[in-house]
This record gives sequence, structure tokens and C-alpha cells, in this order.
Amino acid sequence: MTFHPFLSNARAPLTQAIQGSDERGRSVSINIPAERALTVYLDKRELVTLMTLGAAPEALVLGYLRNQRLLRSVDDISSIQVDWEVESAAVTTRNGVDRIEERTSKRVVTTGCGQGSVFGGLMDEVDAIVLSVDARLMQSTLYKIVETIRSSQSIYKQAGSVHGCALFSAVGELIYFVEDIGRHNAVDAIAGKMWLDDVDGGDKIFYTTGRLTSEMVIKGAQMGIPFLLSRSGTTQMGHSVALQLGMTLLARCTGRHFLLLSGADRFIFEPHLLVPID
Amino acid sequence: MTFHPFLSNARAPLTQAIQGSDERGRSVSINIPAERALTVYLDKRELVTLMTLGAAPEALVLGYLRNQRLLRSVDDISSIQVDWEVESAAVTTRNGVDRIEERTSKRVVTTGCGQGSVFGGLMDEVDAIVLSVDARLMQSTLYKIVETIRSSQSIYKQAGSVHGCALFSAVGELIYFVEDIGRHNAVDAIAGKMWLDDVDGGDKIFYTTGRLTSEMVIKGAQMGIPFLLSRSGTTQMGHSVALQLGMTLLARCTGRHFLLLSGADRFIFEPHLLVPID
Repeated sequence: MTFHPFLSNARAPLTQAIQGSDERGRSVSINIPAERALTVYLDKRELVTLMTLGAAPEALVLGYLRNQRLLRSVDDISSIQVDWEVESAAVTTRNGVDRIEERTSKRVVTTGCGQGSVFGGLMDEVDAIVLSVDARLMQSTLYKIVETIRSSQSIYKQAGSVHGCALFSAVGELIYFVEDIGRHNAVDAIAGKMWLDDVDGGDKIFYTTGRLTSEMVIKGAQMGIPFLLSRSGTTQMGHSVALQLGMTLLARCTGRHFLLLSGADRFIFEPHLLVPID
Repeated sequence: MTFHPFLSNARAPLTQAIQGSDERGRSVSINIPAERALTVYLDKRELVTLMTLGAAPEALVLGYLRNQRLLRSVDDISSIQVDWEVESAAVTTRNGVDRIEERTSKRVVTTGCGQGSVFGGLMDEVDAIVLSVDARLMQSTLYKIVETIRSSQSIYKQAGSVHGCALFSAVGELIYFVEDIGRHNAVDAIAGKMWLDDVDGGDKIFYTTGRLTSEMVIKGAQMGIPFLLSRSGTTQMGHSVALQLGMTLLARCTGRHFLLLSGADRFIFEPHLLVPID
């Protein structure tokens, strides 16, 4: 039997119009994305402050707790109450958190964005992860995903300066799309949504506008997702962790172009989709 | 009298060639940036692990300590020894660090990239910062800076997936240029170099390829720099902190284009630089 947590549904404006001048000194109005602090209290203990767009704060908090492995199951959580008035998220667990003092005092190991998330010890667990060997991604599905992202309504199109992450089914149907000022938040929010909806990552495809750094690859793997797609590139550690995991990494996905960088066995080329070039 | 710290000059490859396939299944070789862990030990106490390109590790560590305000002066440091064999930076201080236990156990307030740097309390200090009111930036200098960046040799051009930060003099001469996989590392490395060389930020211009989030604005202000330029955009908190500080923020700087978003008093338009458009 599953007890789903009670979640608030906090809303806040995601963009703001500001005034500036262009290069000719002409007054212009542009939209910029919101950036707000969200301090997470776990059973009244201050845990962390996340700087976020605020599009999906409850899922972000949930996914943060999941990806930091502070909680083992969504059922451990009784409620998450986000209140933008006081920029806080109050998380109540059913039975407390094991060794919370010790686990939250561990020093920060930081990541992709350079000085990223707390994730001490994540790498230690990578060896234990086994990704599906049966999952397949067809070239036509990849193109469908890229086109879905391209044609989506987004804060990025309105205001720029955000990253987007999305989860797709094996046949390229959009399941979740989350934007945030940091790609780490966006991936955490997807992880939170998957936990809430009990979605298994085993045959899913994860898309991000951001780079495929070590942290993105590790978080994708923790969700059990065999396919990582990015509009952007990868880094040496992102690539080497993907090789180690046998994860299928596709970078520079725009239009018809992409680079398949690891896990090629899962990818099915469809040459008829492209005009011959001889 | 100034005691400069002894610094190692650790080197490591900054790019790696990897094999992949393009959309036609053709084998391709691409360069990707390095991403490596650097664990910082402060007087033998493990402080943090930074994921970095590794272009300027000693300056990165120095700037990290500066921007986290763990040390007040570069003179407090006796040596920084980076050893890539063991992925560590050993920092030795002259007289230890005050209340190190307490100050490094403070929970992470995270930032721009979403779950960024440890910087609990930074915002509290913003009010105390006074930026130069006399500094000026001419439109022609801005264009010179943008062109300098555009024509620079860079890891970005070789391998993509890195951010660059640079410091320029008031007349647009390049002082430092640092790339890293995260813009927070790149800005910290610039801060480290400024500390080492005793460079004052009061009339300087800071350029970043990354977004002007709250953390970038705060770090720029901490270095006393009145001008922040970005190829990219800004966020609501980045913009509002800049307004609060009276910092001059210029976003979307590419070619002849830019958006002047705050601190317009310091900017000198030169209409003759642009062809009339009527």
C-alpha cells in the first residue's frame, strides 16, 4: 500500500519584465526568468537553500531529497509545503531520517556547473547501477523528441537564461518537461515527478538542454535511464562515466544532427530518414 | 610587507579526443573538455571537492577560499600545492583559520547553476558593498572587449562545453581569461589571480560567457567590480541585486548588440559607432 505525500501547489510568477537600453540607447522591455531562494527544512531542520525558477518547487524538493539519497522512498514523506511568502519548503517525514546529522554534515562534492550539488559519495554507487540492455532508441524517435522540444512553449523562449530537462517514453512521447535556472534543479524536479508517479526509468529517454557533465550522467543513471540526450556537449568525466555504465549518450542533438558518443548498441540508425549525400 | 604564497604549477591535459558516430553512422572524432575532481584540503582538513577543467587549479583554490571568505588575505596562505596524481590541493595557512569547524559546517546556500556554491551569508554582506561611482565604460571599449573574446584562442572553440570569464582594464585591455566547466569556477579563478597580483576591481570590467545570476553578480561585487558583461542573459535576482548595488549590467553582448540593464550612469554611448538606421 502506498501513501502519497501531501504536496502544496505553490505558484509564483516565472518571468518578469524589466526595462533596459539597447546599443542605440533605445529603451527596451525584456522578460527575464525569476530566480528565487527556496530553503528546505527537513523535519524542521534547515537542510539547504536552492536557487530556483520556481516552476515545480514541490517536485524539485522531492527530487533533491531523492538524488541526495536522504530518503529511500517517496512513502517516507508525509508532506511537502512550499510557501513563497517565506521562501521555504517544509518537508515532514513519517518516521524521521536515519543519521540525519551525520549525513547532512558531509562535505560537499561539487559538480558539472563547477561548484554544483552536494553529492558526496555518488560516484561510489555508480558501480552498482545496471542499465537496461534491451532498451532501444530509434533515430526517428530521437528526431521526434528534438522536434517536440523545439516546438514546445517554454520559459526559455519567453525569457532565455533557463535550462530545460524532459523525460520521454520509449516511443518519444513527452512525459515531463521542467525548466529551471540550473539544469541540476531541472533534473531533480524530473526525478521528483518520477518518484511521485512511480515511473520507472528503464526504457525512458532523458533530454536536457544543458551539458552532459558527470553529475547529469550520474543522476540519469540513478533514475535507471539508459538514454541521455543533449542539445549541448559533454565533458570528459560525463563521457567516461557513461562508458563505464554503458549508458547511451547523444550530444549536439539539433535538427537532423547528433553525435552518438557511447552505448551505440542501443541505438538504431534509420538511414532512409536522411537524404543521401554522395 | 607581503608574503606571497608558494604555488605549485600543476598541469594536466585540458581536452581529450573521443570517438563517436554522427547521424549517418559515420565515425567521427571530437574534442571534449577535461572534467576532473580537485579535493581541497585546508590545513589537512578536507574542505570541498571541485569539479574543474583544471586550467588554473591554484588560482581556483585561492579564489574559492577568497569568495567563500574563509581567509581574509592572500598573505594568510603559506602554500597551495596541487597534485593531479591524487586529485588534491593542499592549502597550508600561516596561522590557521579562525573558527574553521563552525564556518565550514554551515549549510550550503546554492545558486545560479541551481545548486551551486557554498555561500551561506553572502547576501547579508551585499549591503556593505560600495562600487565606484566614477568608473566609466565607453561603448567602443565594450566592442573592443567583445571582439577580444571572439578572437581569443580558447578551449571552448576546441571542445565546447566550457564557460569563460575574463577581466579587462578600464580601456579594454585583457588582464585575465579563464575557462572552466562551470562559470563559478572560472570567476573564482579570476578572483584568485586578482588576489595574487593585488589587482583592484574598482575600475575593471568583468566578462562572462555565462548567465548573470545572483551569484555572479554577488561575486563580481565582492571583487569590487562595477561592470559585468555577459554574452548571455540575466535572472531576476541577478538583476535585482545589481540594481541594489548600482552595478552596471550588460547582457546579450554579441557583435554590436547589447542590452544595458542597470547602472546606466556609468555607460557612455557613442552613437557614431553605429550606422544610422532611418
